[in-house]
Amino acid sequence: MAESRDRDQPADGRARAVIDAVRPAVDGGRFAVKRCVGDRMTVEADCFTDGHDQLRVMLRWRPETEKAWRELEMQPLGNDLWRASFPLEALGRYRYTVTAWVDHFLTWRTEFARRTEAEDLRVAARVGAAQIAQIAARASGKARRRLADWAQALRAAEAIEALRPVALDEELAALASKYPDRGLAVHWPAELPLDVDPVLARCSAWYEMFPRSASRAPGRHGTLRDVEARLDYVAEMGFDVLYLPPVHPIGRERRKGRNNALLAGPGDVGSPWAIGAREGGHHALHPELGTLEDFRRLVARARALGIELALDIAFQCAPDHPYVGEHPQWFRRRPDGSVQYAENPPKKYQDIYPFNFESGDWRALWDELKGVLEFWIGEGVRVFRVDNPHTKPFAFWEWAIETVKRAHPEVIFLSEAFTRPKVMHRLAKLGFGQSYTYFAWRNTRHELTEYFLELAHGPGREYLRPNVWPNTPDILTEALQYGGRPAFMARLVLAATLAANYGIYGPVYELCESEAREPGSEEYLDSEKYQLRHWDLERPGSLRPFVALLNRIRRENPALQSDQGLRFFDTGNEQLICYAKIAPAHGNAVVALVSLDPHHVHSGWVELDLAALGIAPDAPFQMHDLLSGARYLWQGARNFVQLDPQRVPAHVFRVRTRVHREQDFDYFL
Amino acid sequence: MAESRDRDQPADGRARAVIDAVRPAVDGGRFAVKRCVGDRMTVEADCFTDGHDQLRVMLRWRPETEKAWRELEMQPLGNDLWRASFPLEALGRYRYTVTAWVDHFLTWRTEFARRTEAEDLRVAARVGAAQIAQIAARASGKARRRLADWAQALRAAEAIEALRPVALDEELAALASKYPDRGLAVHWPAELPLDVDPVLARCSAWYEMFPRSASRAPGRHGTLRDVEARLDYVAEMGFDVLYLPPVHPIGRERRKGRNNALLAGPGDVGSPWAIGAREGGHHALHPELGTLEDFRRLVARARALGIELALDIAFQCAPDHPYVGEHPQWFRRRPDGSVQYAENPPKKYQDIYPFNFESGDWRALWDELKGVLEFWIGEGVRVFRVDNPHTKPFAFWEWAIETVKRAHPEVIFLSEAFTRPKVMHRLAKLGFGQSYTYFAWRNTRHELTEYFLELAHGPGREYLRPNVWPNTPDILTEALQYGGRPAFMARLVLAATLAANYGIYGPVYELCESEAREPGSEEYLDSEKYQLRHWDLERPGSLRPFVALLNRIRRENPALQSDQGLRFFDTGNEQLICYAKIAPAHGNAVVALVSLDPHHVHSGWVELDLAALGIAPDAPFQMHDLLSGARYLWQGARNFVQLDPQRVPAHVFRVRTRVHREQDFDYFL
Repeated sequence: MAESRDRDQPADGRARAVIDAVRPAVDGGRFAVKRCVGDRMTVEADCFTDGHDQLRVMLRWRPETEKAWRELEMQPLGNDLWRASFPLEALGRYRYTVTAWVDHFLTWRTEFARRTEAEDLRVAARVGAAQIAQIAARASGKARRRLADWAQALRAAEAIEALRPVALDEELAALASKYPDRGLAVHWPAELPLDVDPVLARCSAWYEMFPRSASRAPGRHGTLRDVEARLDYVAEMGFDVLYLPPVHPIGRERRKGRNNALLAGPGDVGSPWAIGAREGGHHALHPELGTLEDFRRLVARARALGIELALDIAFQCAPDHPYVGEHPQWFRRRPDGSVQYAENPPKKYQDIYPFNFESGDWRALWDELKGVLEFWIGEGVRVFRVDNPHTKPFAFWEWAIETVKRAHPEVIFLSEAFTRPKVMHRLAKLGFGQSYTYFAWRNTRHELTEYFLELAHGPGREYLRPNVWPNTPDILTEALQYGGRPAFMARLVLAATLAANYGIYGPVYELCESEAREPGSEEYLDSEKYQLRHWDLERPGSLRPFVALLNRIRRENPALQSDQGLRFFDTGNEQLICYAKIAPAHGNAVVALVSLDPHHVHSGWVELDLAALGIAPDAPFQMHDLLSGARYLWQGARNFVQLDPQRVPAHVFRVRTRVHREQDFDYFL
Repeated sequence: MAESRDRDQPADGRARAVIDAVRPAVDGGRFAVKRCVGDRMTVEADCFTDGHDQLRVMLRWRPETEKAWRELEMQPLGNDLWRASFPLEALGRYRYTVTAWVDHFLTWRTEFARRTEAEDLRVAARVGAAQIAQIAARASGKARRRLADWAQALRAAEAIEALRPVALDEELAALASKYPDRGLAVHWPAELPLDVDPVLARCSAWYEMFPRSASRAPGRHGTLRDVEARLDYVAEMGFDVLYLPPVHPIGRERRKGRNNALLAGPGDVGSPWAIGAREGGHHALHPELGTLEDFRRLVARARALGIELALDIAFQCAPDHPYVGEHPQWFRRRPDGSVQYAENPPKKYQDIYPFNFESGDWRALWDELKGVLEFWIGEGVRVFRVDNPHTKPFAFWEWAIETVKRAHPEVIFLSEAFTRPKVMHRLAKLGFGQSYTYFAWRNTRHELTEYFLELAHGPGREYLRPNVWPNTPDILTEALQYGGRPAFMARLVLAATLAANYGIYGPVYELCESEAREPGSEEYLDSEKYQLRHWDLERPGSLRPFVALLNRIRRENPALQSDQGLRFFDTGNEQLICYAKIAPAHGNAVVALVSLDPHHVHSGWVELDLAALGIAPDAPFQMHDLLSGARYLWQGARNFVQLDPQRVPAHVFRVRTRVHREQDFDYFL
């Protein structure tokens, strides 16, 4: 990041402005900052010069597809901090940077305003007149004439009383500021990248389901048409994204049986993540699911209901995937010539062949895999959930996502990397628009508070968008196994209100399925990963209406649609967690209170930060519980709360502040 | 900081290692990290790869004068963090960076150790034999033969029991690791700069005095010979640096009088910062101070006593400085043709002409000013205190300091910039080895705690070395004006123990001179800046023995010689501040307790962090007050303290932990 000059032989030592820092920036501009369409991008810079001279600082920005920079004057906020912001009206990559210069006209004007002695003012007027004449020479037409006249007037003014108003004329100063001498401007050495994604990247509610279990007739293999019939169910619950596990032909060789048995029985359907068979590979549909026409129809019907279809991208092969025969060079061989299966000794996954990304033919492999993404984009897909991206090279993802997004900036990639923190962050930096998190395993008040403060306010906030899931087909947590329906409700409220992006794996979630394969395991018993299941969606006790209510609350409260503005409040009770999402720009604040103990009634005293919530210290305010409809009148920071998990283990309050108007009764905003 | 590859056409997509971060680095390597000779430089990197393969990570470093990198294997500490350190044995600029690669041999070996099934082990042995044969091909001589034999032995081993010890032979693995395949290594894109300074840059006690007031005869102008006679006095107090205000000829034109009067009287000596007269400018000595021979003698005598002479560098001119006539192009002109004096409207400084760094002749100006530094280095100076560096271009300082230090890495520059925080930090980043601070105006416990935690542990710790002064010729704080001798003692203890670099302006400090020119002013009455003074060094009440004791304590306690290892403890009393400096590597810990109220006796309960101090929770320990010699036996974190400012307003405890030995009485380390 060295400034673009040789420090032994400075290019022009007279350039005296300094840009010490430009924010935000991810790793000094190595990676892009992320925002969404409709956001304002705010950029800050630390700029100064030696001595007392005045600076002008410009924020420069452009969509990457355009050559010309647009410029905005940055405003000084004191302490050498400068700021400007611009609207993000289009998808895609932007660049921004900063330039600054010592502005002699502004310096002259600022000093002139402070001068008091008559002789000083006279001398300064002559100095200013000469400067303004130079500025006029850079202008043309009418501006040039006006500036030249101004210089002349300043030269001509004799009486001190006349001098000051002429010299400090605001309109002429504004005109002069349009023709600065930028010959000695300095430039921030990096053109910082910024990715502008669809709003769905910032706020989304995901629903995962296995198409093959979607059939209305028990025992019949579900189809994409069955999924289509399920769309209303999903839409009525208020989800934005419908995520399907891989829809490709499933390998027959070394197919796994029910409950991950090493050998499949004759009727076993296999794991959808064992991709590829004689019917085709990553470009094909599993024949029992339907046709590409069914697929396109499903995408379109879903979109009409406000739902994007998310496809699972798992770049690995079953032993009978066509790639294995067609591109043997993309796989590693064992000494006996057989293809090397996936392993993490002593564990073996003989049904999965990983790609050898160190193949000499890696360029063709990269192109082929990018082609898979492009193929499904061509079929209408805009959202990909990428399976285990951390087991494929980071450089591949960076290249593939960047290349795909250049042509299709509307596409969102979700990183399914349940791995070490720095690896998760790297994937987010290099282009994944959403990231799975550790939420499933964060249960205590301390754990949740620490983790979500880090997610909302740590350095990752510029590039990592958390997507939190209380369950997945691989993760049935102990909290759910042993917490019963109250735990399912509480974890759902936490997911839906702590994070703007969240998802559930259904219908097992809304049906509160909680039986694990064996004690100590997080695997579902009779998991859909290995067999067809049939679900009675109308089963009593389904959380379906509760889910629908939560998603409606999310849609109606902008504070819940962003990960910013999160803060936690004390409750005096470790089993009660309380936090607010605050969106001052929308006048919206939501306070959630959740019981972390599914078994006992808990009470406590919530200690709100009234100032942060925009509530005057002595004003009463209404806490409107959007789950129950109840409205509570509170006053002051400290208020009593109680939750019975057997009823509803949470409040989700909308904060309504009282407004007094003389012609009105009190009412609540 | 983009990695050195085109992301659209990756150079070699098979390079799978990732270096996500290298620390420490100042602004991504734009500026140098600072250390001192004798330190160990510890570098950390975040490195990982996709999947389960093993990495090797190398720290590369070299003195900048050498081409060849030296390499050290970095050790994994878990969570993708790697670390290595190397000793800094020579002064000057170093470079360091990191390289990493996926190591297939290490991966093979790690996986082999985890394998359990016989067939797996047999296959893995064959894979390993092939790898080792390739490694042998990269070796030569005896190593090549040993590795080839190993590959053969692995191929030949039949019995499973024999296989494992052969495959996992540690010595052969160590040999193989010397010949890795680094063809797909990745490199951190920056070669990070590191400046290794003399130890004096990290730890120094400064004494400032006006040579012209050093005469033993009242009314006679002091000389460098008088300063020489004062050296013993300074050395006995334990100072390392003797700093003299400018020693150049003083301008006569528009000379200021006593107490900064606009007109000098006939006998007035003027300000040493109004540099230059017919006798010469920045290369000359004020004739009344003596000759260059006197100067060289003073430098040598001081050095023999362990004292470096620090020269004041004030790059500005009196109106009669020779530069004004010889280089008129280096100064700005007013419309009447006169030279523009310094001003910050409405304030004017007619006795000072600033250089115009935007002069077309700026290169010659830069060279000339650098020449001034080189001239005095030639006369033996190794320490410069630079006056108001923030009123000269930052680019000039970066170039001048870097150029000077390349030839003279032993030189230290102290930045006298009492200005805004970001400006102070920039000057430190670009090369100043020490920086004045806001210490003089940080008086309350909260202020001192916040400020010194920021200095010791904030990002500036890598490049900004604070030098704290309770007074200077420009700063007689209200705390000293109204606090009497106890305030002088307390502020001295704070300066000497909170910071490894500190200084006082004497003899006014040790003599507790506290009269300001007028109420509300921080200027000394009858300041030496404008007139000769005569000081009775033997005056009763002088803090001289107290200063000497403090500097001896600093020399005997390594914890006080570094700004690291600082932590604060609660006292339950806002007027009592307590903190520790801890140097675990030296087994040294000092706890200081200072009363901030010079008027009243205060007591409190200190709450120590025993673990940080290396004290077992239930062990008694000795607090040895190095100021009074008293020894207190304490136990537990909470202990009673009391300070009477009329006696000594501070304790400086050395913590002595009890050691039990069977053959001994208890004693304290």
